[in-house]
Amino acid sequence: MDNPLTPPVLADPVALTRALVDVESVSGAEKYLADCVEQVLRDRPYLQVARLGNTVMARTELGRERRVVLAGHLDTVPVADNLPSRVEGDVIYGCGTSDMKSGVPLALHLAATVPAPWYDVTYFFYECEEVESERNGLNLVARAHPEWLTADFAVLLEPTYGGVGAGCQGSLRAVVTTTGVRAHSARAWHGVNAIHAAADVLDRLRRYEPRRVTIDGCEFREGLNAVGISGGVAGNVIPDHCEVVVNYRFAPDRSEAEAEAHVRDVFAGYDVRLTDSAPGALPGLTAPPAVEFLAAVARAGDGAPPAAKLGWTDVARFAALGVPALNFGPGDPNLAHTREERVEIPRIRAGARALREWLA
Amino acid sequence: MDNPLTPPVLADPVALTRALVDVESVSGAEKYLADCVEQVLRDRPYLQVARLGNTVMARTELGRERRVVLAGHLDTVPVADNLPSRVEGDVIYGCGTSDMKSGVPLALHLAATVPAPWYDVTYFFYECEEVESERNGLNLVARAHPEWLTADFAVLLEPTYGGVGAGCQGSLRAVVTTTGVRAHSARAWHGVNAIHAAADVLDRLRRYEPRRVTIDGCEFREGLNAVGISGGVAGNVIPDHCEVVVNYRFAPDRSEAEAEAHVRDVFAGYDVRLTDSAPGALPGLTAPPAVEFLAAVARAGDGAPPAAKLGWTDVARFAALGVPALNFGPGDPNLAHTREERVEIPRIRAGARALREWLA
Repeated sequence: MDNPLTPPVLADPVALTRALVDVESVSGAEKYLADCVEQVLRDRPYLQVARLGNTVMARTELGRERRVVLAGHLDTVPVADNLPSRVEGDVIYGCGTSDMKSGVPLALHLAATVPAPWYDVTYFFYECEEVESERNGLNLVARAHPEWLTADFAVLLEPTYGGVGAGCQGSLRAVVTTTGVRAHSARAWHGVNAIHAAADVLDRLRRYEPRRVTIDGCEFREGLNAVGISGGVAGNVIPDHCEVVVNYRFAPDRSEAEAEAHVRDVFAGYDVRLTDSAPGALPGLTAPPAVEFLAAVARAGDGAPPAAKLGWTDVARFAALGVPALNFGPGDPNLAHTREERVEIPRIRAGARALREWLA
Repeated sequence: MDNPLTPPVLADPVALTRALVDVESVSGAEKYLADCVEQVLRDRPYLQVARLGNTVMARTELGRERRVVLAGHLDTVPVADNLPSRVEGDVIYGCGTSDMKSGVPLALHLAATVPAPWYDVTYFFYECEEVESERNGLNLVARAHPEWLTADFAVLLEPTYGGVGAGCQGSLRAVVTTTGVRAHSARAWHGVNAIHAAADVLDRLRRYEPRRVTIDGCEFREGLNAVGISGGVAGNVIPDHCEVVVNYRFAPDRSEAEAEAHVRDVFAGYDVRLTDSAPGALPGLTAPPAVEFLAAVARAGDGAPPAAKLGWTDVARFAALGVPALNFGPGDPNLAHTREERVEIPRIRAGARALREWLA
């Protein structure tokens, strides 16, 4: 194997970003990239390395009082005519530059170049974050080797544009159904129109006032929205069934069960069927390694205060195991999954500086 | 060709009903049945016969002062495990027994057995009424040979359960669209939810008070209904587009243009796209042959007054050509297109008696 992750590349987070981006690794096709990463890590005598599928774990065993996790996913969404990468001025363009092949190199650079970090560190480079949860590498590790995830604090290298994305909101989807009675539309009074009945469901959504919750100084702004609606039998039939799919994004002070109860309460009187649900994660800014991490980021970066991460991320998997976790990465989350995905080189350097200051 | 429409069968409208039902003729597959009907008619020297596709026309040329049309379609909706026909007591079960192979035999029986009717008569046995208008046999005749349809009055043998179905309502379909701005559902306030916006469209439908219009003593009861709704991009996206399909059934005192203007008025402020439209037909109860027809039906049947036909039927095609037209048939319209389709034998006999009294 002609590994593109050579020592000079590993020594430079910007070069490493380009090298990682240029190894295509759409979800399900991470094997070659995982092989390259594993080889680099196995070459380091101070790391214990293990692998599960295309997820590579490496950890120091220095006997430090505390252990922290740095985790990043190797996969990307499908390429959109945006590989190989290209550089224009201070910006690298290409699939994964934001999400999250500018975050992953911060961890890989440290793993390759810092033999004796301040904390014991567990590094994860994992597969299939962009697809269904059943294939997610961290989820597979949590089931097969939960002890690998034991730590006092975790940083997930999701794009946060150099800020700190604290915790994450939970997400729940449910189908709210209205029913009626079919009839020929020429004799509509023989029926009951289930689509008309959905007006009340949509009215409740329109009137809904989402909570804003501040936790550890971070404001989580909730939302309850219709993300789908469907109904209708034929062009001449009064429909007897209409489904509204709603998505509730909830602050991490609510459990999944509380979130479900809330949605059922909002749509009291209707059939509500839960289709999927994922818990939120509390910001966890008060854990000692988190305090030191925030200080290092503030010194290295622009000093912006931590903000709530509103999208769901894998920090919730750590939170579920009792491990406080944050999101931190150079990419702009609004550019993730877009054709124009890109990252600013100064943000990569600032991110690397912050992590090195914290760990080295 | 071994024609099942033998002289003894043609002499008995009930036997003829069973014979027609037992020749399967789902829309598009009417050829064999049309061949049988054409042969019967060509055997009658007092009839001029012509054919267009699988539509057979036959007419007397007796020089009467007035000409009437008797028209029935040969096709049925798809068979639903309900062929061949079976008889239980006074009831014939099977595909088409109501719609309209108990109406067609009334006309075919007269064509085969009444050489010198009171009016000149034009008989139509036509194809593809149950499918899109472009394939409808009467529609094809109206385009290719409009002179075939010239008449003072027409009876369409649609199921009316032995009553007289006067005129018909028009029908219009339109798509009402709401728009918004896409956003990630974790940051819904960056977007505008087009499904929530549809609440107002549905509210207008819920509040809508349909007209009731009485014409020639027949009440036409209108309706404006959603018959379909769809919206949604993905489970984590605030949708920017939602479509509500509405169906307006309008009394025949309104033209298609007036009906469209009314729907646009109801949904003022929204994008409204007309998808299809068919005019209504006035009852036409005052034309002289209609008056005599109503008298004959009253004498032969239960004397129920004519009622508005609320579903759209091909009478509207005659109305559009200036020919007053009615619906009259033994079947129950509520059983049309059902697996349990059936007809009561006494109603077939009463219908045949009424038409014979009127014409012979």
